[in-house]
Amino acid sequence: MADPILELTALLARLPGVGERTATRLAYHILENPRDYAEALGTALCEIHKRVQRCESCGNYAEGPICAICSDPTRESNRICVVARPTDVNAIERGRIYRGRYYVLHALLSPLDGMGPEKLSLQPLVERVEKRDVKEVILATPLSVDGEATALFIARRLQELEVKCSRIASGLPHGGELEYTDQITLSRAFEGRKEV
Amino acid sequence: MADPILELTALLARLPGVGERTATRLAYHILENPRDYAEALGTALCEIHKRVQRCESCGNYAEGPICAICSDPTRESNRICVVARPTDVNAIERGRIYRGRYYVLHALLSPLDGMGPEKLSLQPLVERVEKRDVKEVILATPLSVDGEATALFIARRLQELEVKCSRIASGLPHGGELEYTDQITLSRAFEGRKEV
Repeated sequence: MADPILELTALLARLPGVGERTATRLAYHILENPRDYAEALGTALCEIHKRVQRCESCGNYAEGPICAICSDPTRESNRICVVARPTDVNAIERGRIYRGRYYVLHALLSPLDGMGPEKLSLQPLVERVEKRDVKEVILATPLSVDGEATALFIARRLQELEVKCSRIASGLPHGGELEYTDQITLSRAFEGRKEV
Repeated sequence: MADPILELTALLARLPGVGERTATRLAYHILENPRDYAEALGTALCEIHKRVQRCESCGNYAEGPICAICSDPTRESNRICVVARPTDVNAIERGRIYRGRYYVLHALLSPLDGMGPEKLSLQPLVERVEKRDVKEVILATPLSVDGEATALFIARRLQELEVKCSRIASGLPHGGELEYTDQITLSRAFEGRKEV
């Protein structure tokens, strides 16, 4: 076996859910198929971090410095929904139940994994709440242990700012992830939110 | 969602066994992880077709014009083992039961998929048999319908050249693929080969 194939296999095996055997199968599949495809995928991978950056306002992925939602004047700017990951924004947007803005944490508190409060990027959120007329912060982190702890931590942090803080509620099963929740359940969770 | 993410997702979804949902998960995983990894994988993909080419002699993947097995003087050059895919060469090499050379078809006859005899690249094999002192051609295509048909077709084609043709035999289950066969079974198949 030629070395470049082993190199490619090793890199593919680092993807989540891809083992040694699957990585080998993928590498040979790529070799057996036209060069165009390998180069298109390769170029997309090389450029993804250049083309996609984090929105300066909300942290979600964006093609420019400010994402489409943050720069949309029709969205309510006095309501901020805090989520763990960009895919959670997609899940909520698919439901069309929320017209406010977002704040993407990109992480959850998880002391056992070395993810302590000091590593949670909250300063931009705090500044947004302080500067603008924010009526409500909706805490939409997952209903998992880490998600609950993170929501509680943010609620306490925002308490001093005297902004209304709510937590998405009933509807999502315990330990559930937003990404895999159906729209009705998500809808109920938004409707049933309560002040923390 | 930013467009570059959708583009990357669409490209990832073309990999075998990767659906829309898995592709999305992979794309976000790549974005959440350091840029170095995305660029390393991207570069490996862009360069794989440049760095790996088909050996001019046997058709297997090689870093130069001739692969390591074809350029190894200790390998018996008067025995050629015909296989469907490069991964089959790896499987046989792992078993260390064969010291001859290979010929990789990269395809099998499959009339229903539009893969007729005219598309099977046999000329380089025929030339090798004609030019050199080849004692035996071992047909080690899979024991599937397409593999059997391909072996029979090649045996008939080589009949005029009066070279001994053998087919790997007993041991591999009907419909089995070389890649997933244990070494003892593969060994038996090599030992039990018979003239066609």
